[in-house]
Amino acid sequence: MKLTILGCHSATPRINSNPTSQVLEINNHIFLIDCGEGTQIQLRKQKIKFSRIKHIFISHLHGDHYFGLVGLISTFRLLTREADLHIYAPKGLKEVITLQMKLSDSWTNYQLFFHELESKSSELIFEDDKVEVYTIPLNHRVYTNGFLFKEKPAERKLDMNAVLNAQIDKSYFRKLKQGFDVENEKGEIISNALLTKNPPKPKSYAFCSDTLFHPEIIPVIDNVNAIYHESTFLEKHRHLCEQTKHSTAKQAAEIAKQANAKTLILGHYSTRYDDLNLFKEEAQTVFKNVELAEDGVVFNI
Amino acid sequence: MKLTILGCHSATPRINSNPTSQVLEINNHIFLIDCGEGTQIQLRKQKIKFSRIKHIFISHLHGDHYFGLVGLISTFRLLTREADLHIYAPKGLKEVITLQMKLSDSWTNYQLFFHELESKSSELIFEDDKVEVYTIPLNHRVYTNGFLFKEKPAERKLDMNAVLNAQIDKSYFRKLKQGFDVENEKGEIISNALLTKNPPKPKSYAFCSDTLFHPEIIPVIDNVNAIYHESTFLEKHRHLCEQTKHSTAKQAAEIAKQANAKTLILGHYSTRYDDLNLFKEEAQTVFKNVELAEDGVVFNI
Repeated sequence: MKLTILGCHSATPRINSNPTSQVLEINNHIFLIDCGEGTQIQLRKQKIKFSRIKHIFISHLHGDHYFGLVGLISTFRLLTREADLHIYAPKGLKEVITLQMKLSDSWTNYQLFFHELESKSSELIFEDDKVEVYTIPLNHRVYTNGFLFKEKPAERKLDMNAVLNAQIDKSYFRKLKQGFDVENEKGEIISNALLTKNPPKPKSYAFCSDTLFHPEIIPVIDNVNAIYHESTFLEKHRHLCEQTKHSTAKQAAEIAKQANAKTLILGHYSTRYDDLNLFKEEAQTVFKNVELAEDGVVFNI
Repeated sequence: MKLTILGCHSATPRINSNPTSQVLEINNHIFLIDCGEGTQIQLRKQKIKFSRIKHIFISHLHGDHYFGLVGLISTFRLLTREADLHIYAPKGLKEVITLQMKLSDSWTNYQLFFHELESKSSELIFEDDKVEVYTIPLNHRVYTNGFLFKEKPAERKLDMNAVLNAQIDKSYFRKLKQGFDVENEKGEIISNALLTKNPPKPKSYAFCSDTLFHPEIIPVIDNVNAIYHESTFLEKHRHLCEQTKHSTAKQAAEIAKQANAKTLILGHYSTRYDDLNLFKEEAQTVFKNVELAEDGVVFNI
């Protein structure tokens, strides 16, 4: 899994800082998560092939998380895209996008599917044979979801020495990989555990922005490998959290700790702070493995 | 009059080229003309003070001319703007912007006035004591206006030597500047022409993008000082004009020539051309004084 931060700053785009957008590469998918103004430029800078983006996940309808989407959809059209595009977003987005297409009399030449979200409980919104995506209901000023990206357990690995020694016919390999016990050439049942090894542990990534400190998400993201959690403020501005429905770096670390996460990635910094290291230092008082998102930075999960 | 090109390229924003947006400084106004995605970044790069922008003119509702507007309106709000903002744009824009404000539950703390345009004839849409703005109906795939920015004639200049010699009382100076004949101290009527000089000629600027070759605009922009006219194509691609409703560099020059313009500024170049000088060369076969718009370039008119 490879996570590229296209933008991780709150509020408005600036010359050297971009609003929220990320690209997650997972099992040959290129998932775009949030799409602030200028995301298409950031995608170009990172040399991410537009045609490989087939699924876009929008957390909420504040501008710094989606104002770049209509332009990206329009650019896809101008580039004569043919592949389907799926957009997972709060209810309302379809109306905004289609109204703008109507006014410009510019309809996409590719199929555009809106999956509008309304549920206040975590739900499975995407699934194929290798990956699942769940919503993570957050607590913000408007209806907001984070997203949990999970690899499905891979097939078991054949222990080829054991398989040959046990005289297992090739036609059983499929069943072995799926975890079944099988017969050998003598008709004896051989335990799967003797013939296969555990596959690599499936990985997971949780994107959580924007939200007030919200421990209700812990059961959804339990044991996640990496969590991106917003840290708009430092503790000294904690009094601003309730009104704005944002979190501090320390609160983000609390979530990571309680969820047994391996890595915490901080972002969505308020522009009032010049030194981002303060976020890391504050979070590390609670949780050790903290990384700072910065525009253009890549994390291998 | 000072014109700053923020973006002048057609279709999609790219790393080194921006969609249409311009700033016209005229008699202490800062008029923003069109507002493609990324305009707020371009404004920051040009160090144009956001609070001085009080009037925004949108030619049409294709994305490369207005997708940056909702973000700019939102940024004004985050910067706690108080000044009114007037937006002159085709009917439909108000619905797009207010829908997005509603979905984000983020209303402006300043007054936002939409002046929605529908007329197919040129109309006066802004006026104060020094400046007038008229629409220039264009011929594009959707309802589109260019804009004509005109200084009003200034007052006549007093010829102080002549005024003193003719023994004109100070109380008549106001009338003299307004062009009236006045009495001298002996009760004789003195012709205004003997006492005043012509003021500097009022200047004008016409913004014409996007449009098919459309000579119907000539009477509206006659004798304009500077005209920005789109030149999406070169003549070798003239066959694309009718379908896309765009112009060639040569056609832009025809318009400038027929309108007796002093200067033609070309822009809205298709991305298919690497060498912008070809546009200039082509236009100069018809009209001599041609300039090329480029992002960040400033023209003093």
